[in-house]
Amino acid sequence: MPDAAQLEHLKKLATLIRYDILTMTTQAGSGHPTSSMSAAELMIGLMFGGIFRYDLDNPKHPNNDRLIFSKGHATPLFYSLWALAGKLTEADLMTYRHFGSPLEGHPTMSFRYTEAATGSLGQGLAIGLGVALNAKYLDRLPYTTYVLLGDSEMAEGSQWETMQLAAHYKLDNLVGVLDVNRLGQRGETMYGHDLMAYERRIAAFGWETILVDGHAFPEVLAAYSRAMTVTDKPVMIIARTIKGKGVSFIEDKNGWHGKTLSREELAKALPELGPVDKTVRGKVQKPEDLRPAPAAPKPAAPLAYEPGASLATRKAYGNALKRLYPQYPDLVSLDAEVSNSTYAEIFKNAFPQEFFEMYIAEQNMVGAGLGLATRGKIPFVSTFAAFFSRAFDQVRMSQYSEPNLKFCGSHAGVSIGEDGPSQMGLEDLAMFRSVLSSVVLYPADAVATERLVEAALEHHGIVYIRTTRAGTPVIYGPEEKFPIGGLKVLRQSDHDLVTVIGAGVTLFEALAAYEALQKEGISIRVIDLYSVKPVDGAALLAAAQATRGLITVEDHYPAGGIGEAVMAALAPNPVPVYALAVTQKPKTGKPAELLDYEAISRNAIIKLVKEIAASR
Amino acid sequence: MPDAAQLEHLKKLATLIRYDILTMTTQAGSGHPTSSMSAAELMIGLMFGGIFRYDLDNPKHPNNDRLIFSKGHATPLFYSLWALAGKLTEADLMTYRHFGSPLEGHPTMSFRYTEAATGSLGQGLAIGLGVALNAKYLDRLPYTTYVLLGDSEMAEGSQWETMQLAAHYKLDNLVGVLDVNRLGQRGETMYGHDLMAYERRIAAFGWETILVDGHAFPEVLAAYSRAMTVTDKPVMIIARTIKGKGVSFIEDKNGWHGKTLSREELAKALPELGPVDKTVRGKVQKPEDLRPAPAAPKPAAPLAYEPGASLATRKAYGNALKRLYPQYPDLVSLDAEVSNSTYAEIFKNAFPQEFFEMYIAEQNMVGAGLGLATRGKIPFVSTFAAFFSRAFDQVRMSQYSEPNLKFCGSHAGVSIGEDGPSQMGLEDLAMFRSVLSSVVLYPADAVATERLVEAALEHHGIVYIRTTRAGTPVIYGPEEKFPIGGLKVLRQSDHDLVTVIGAGVTLFEALAAYEALQKEGISIRVIDLYSVKPVDGAALLAAAQATRGLITVEDHYPAGGIGEAVMAALAPNPVPVYALAVTQKPKTGKPAELLDYEAISRNAIIKLVKEIAASR
Repeated sequence: MPDAAQLEHLKKLATLIRYDILTMTTQAGSGHPTSSMSAAELMIGLMFGGIFRYDLDNPKHPNNDRLIFSKGHATPLFYSLWALAGKLTEADLMTYRHFGSPLEGHPTMSFRYTEAATGSLGQGLAIGLGVALNAKYLDRLPYTTYVLLGDSEMAEGSQWETMQLAAHYKLDNLVGVLDVNRLGQRGETMYGHDLMAYERRIAAFGWETILVDGHAFPEVLAAYSRAMTVTDKPVMIIARTIKGKGVSFIEDKNGWHGKTLSREELAKALPELGPVDKTVRGKVQKPEDLRPAPAAPKPAAPLAYEPGASLATRKAYGNALKRLYPQYPDLVSLDAEVSNSTYAEIFKNAFPQEFFEMYIAEQNMVGAGLGLATRGKIPFVSTFAAFFSRAFDQVRMSQYSEPNLKFCGSHAGVSIGEDGPSQMGLEDLAMFRSVLSSVVLYPADAVATERLVEAALEHHGIVYIRTTRAGTPVIYGPEEKFPIGGLKVLRQSDHDLVTVIGAGVTLFEALAAYEALQKEGISIRVIDLYSVKPVDGAALLAAAQATRGLITVEDHYPAGGIGEAVMAALAPNPVPVYALAVTQKPKTGKPAELLDYEAISRNAIIKLVKEIAASR
Repeated sequence: MPDAAQLEHLKKLATLIRYDILTMTTQAGSGHPTSSMSAAELMIGLMFGGIFRYDLDNPKHPNNDRLIFSKGHATPLFYSLWALAGKLTEADLMTYRHFGSPLEGHPTMSFRYTEAATGSLGQGLAIGLGVALNAKYLDRLPYTTYVLLGDSEMAEGSQWETMQLAAHYKLDNLVGVLDVNRLGQRGETMYGHDLMAYERRIAAFGWETILVDGHAFPEVLAAYSRAMTVTDKPVMIIARTIKGKGVSFIEDKNGWHGKTLSREELAKALPELGPVDKTVRGKVQKPEDLRPAPAAPKPAAPLAYEPGASLATRKAYGNALKRLYPQYPDLVSLDAEVSNSTYAEIFKNAFPQEFFEMYIAEQNMVGAGLGLATRGKIPFVSTFAAFFSRAFDQVRMSQYSEPNLKFCGSHAGVSIGEDGPSQMGLEDLAMFRSVLSSVVLYPADAVATERLVEAALEHHGIVYIRTTRAGTPVIYGPEEKFPIGGLKVLRQSDHDLVTVIGAGVTLFEALAAYEALQKEGISIRVIDLYSVKPVDGAALLAAAQATRGLITVEDHYPAGGIGEAVMAALAPNPVPVYALAVTQKPKTGKPAELLDYEAISRNAIIKLVKEIAASR
């Protein structure tokens, strides 16, 4: 229990933070003051109540406790906390939401104390899970991860994915703080102030629950203390709070979400806070100076693939993870209950400690991957290419945390065959290309896969690797290099009619078309576009200018895929591009039947090449 | 309780269905026999135990009970059920997974008894929720919706979104059947055969739960009977089952997911089933012949927008729904707790019965929309454009159900301003364009918005409408037509240097650039590309050929957006395309600051036009 002096001190901090929240949002003219005010005592109690351990001068300290605002719109509270800690001035706060200020509308990495960018609701807890997995199972450090949650966002299914996985992994170092302020953006939440409704659900999912009045410091501090004693399960502090708490005319009122006070309203509100001591500051405890003990890197074994042997690139992906881990001991693997299909299981079987089974819960998996990445790991997150669409919001959001995060999607395209369209990744290139800073790689054979996994490890950023279900022949020698942004010209002569660009399975269709056309006296250039983003525009332009144009062939829907990537690379200096892609609603069938049906097979290429030949 | 004869009959059906499941999958060489065998008694009990009411000759009967296989991989069971009902022959079953057969690997609309295409797990329950909402609140018919669920897929957060919403809407006409066969694709699920783990969670979410032995017909039938008596809550029948039940060497064994028996194994397995009576058939009860009583359409009111007045297209969207509902009484609106931002609230306030608040649970919302569409409604599903990424898998999958389904994403692009990148829709065009059969519309003013909502209502299929946060001036007269696939040439002369293509906010940047350049003696052509998919390629080609090329300007990331849509439309007949798009990591700021920062503003257009002018 806090003594009277401590209580007095915390209350002063709460008064000042409400002052900061209100003034900075009125100054900004936008923002979410009321959603910030409801969690003031919860966050002040955590940070300045002797619980939170953090080296303010070293945000990267590996043993810092971690605080993630899943309710990312509560940035007025978030930034003001660090002001109370002495790390921002009032003048800094007045730049809130201005262009160029690190204090952006939702937390981003431009602010040095942001752990991960949030703002799309229901994502912070999964990130916290990744951080907590790191602490408990990888770095083995005693820090705790705290996640501030809104009540509205508990409607997101992603939360319940994380709830179950956190309990499954017994993450007693993960503490959720649920700010039940009753009101969502446009009205009351499903459960209002019925804390028991949350408690029943959360407890059923295997968490320890603690109910508190979120504005009573003694209860809040006691809850955090109790949370520290819980073992083998994560803890949720479920707090009854009042939205807009502290100012009578906005307290618990609908219509005040994401709304700031006018100057006049501010003038009316501030006196209600009572005397504001602008000099009061909170003290944050320092963490123990513990460090993880990472394994020393050892050179990876060389490649050993027989030229011409058939191997699925998905299998080469698993081989690559296993082969490369000794050299990159920060590598971890996550998979969504399909490791025997993505072949992440090859890695899992070799290094079970560095593998996390995430079950069929892709959103949490991507969030957890991001959490691990924030702690310096290099997560490889795998599932069927199609099922990453389940986590597109998490993928999209992850870019704003600037992570070193890798995705591998298997079972690309109609070439998977009989399972049909639900299992076919036909939008994954569009999806991952749309991420601004992403790299998108699409190996055709086992050697390319191994080298591109290596390239992904060497590249700091978001990388997507697309793999194929069926075996493809090994066409590259073990010494072949695959730089990101490159391509391979596999067939060329000085009298090529057109250039055919394949990738993955369609490369082999292009090569087969080459053979067939050669017999008829027609030469085509064949390119393996293994780097779909970035694209080697200069090499494509040269090939296009040396021939009558480009034919792209892709096992993907037309929009956002390889064809458009090629067009975009050449747009100011246009050349004819003929895009073959999946344009019929796919169905069940044998791979070869489906490639023909979609006109992305060798036959379709041959037909188009002959049409072009006849057209002049 | 079934009498001895009925029990005997049901057991014969179960034996035959196992025979069918095993033989058709061995014949196909792929498929999921073991996942089908676990649910045999559950489904036979439902369909042929006197519970299920369905007019076999009229699958569209509005009062049919509905059965959705959320575990879509159990198609051997699904199709065999309809064979037992007399609607497929053994020869039909032998075409399973063959190219051209309606019996595809996962359920699609090529099979007449499929309610909705499934196969990406965790989606069937949300579709069922939409169907049940329709029955209870719109058509007001007494049919029941049954959803067969796998235990592995309960890890998907989407399930728990639906769990909470179904309870919230008191859907006592929705019955889940949870096939707890313990084994997922690559091993045991998180909870194995711990039925209580499911029961605790599901009951906490407000459902009635009934635990049964899923292979004991008396228990199964009693559960369905009891489910019919539950009021004001949905019901989950939680069944303990054995994967591969009926054949000793695959029963409850890991490693048999998605694996068929070889001919030799089949020969060993079939005798274990006992005598098979291939003539036995089940009888399905007919439904009461009730019909919904839809409102008679009345002509919509005419448009009334003041030319030049400023109005956000998102607000015009709300106005349009309200204005058009009388003419299209099948219109329903769903929104994810942001109806005061998307302005679906304008419709909600006018027609509260036709509006469903879906809270912050976008995956369930899209699934529910699909469910409503399967029952003939025309759902308009709205949230921030960015947050549709949360439901990309549901959007992607919905196309395979061939629905009449509309999406509206508000708050597109960096032009939303201070809230920052988490709230900015910057990938939504790429995402919705990637859906093969989609239409993508992007109105610039209020009139265009109204007309495009109308066009969406008239077009049977998936339509995405992108709206803008800020007000834009009304530039079109009330009689202007906006056909899907069209564009508007707003400025042109016979001496235009280049053609600038805008849409939404960037159209007004293009118009402002036009004015500024006119003063300097430079003419540009300006096009409003309100139909992003399909694109009017012929008109673009004409404009490009009449000028030095095209400049596309879009408030969206480059990949998969308007620039690439334009390039793709012109690819075989290329013209220079200069694509201006969002290429810097967005941040917080004022809309105009951000348009400049991203070089998609009038200033950026003017600069590029002058560069092109100087380049010759």
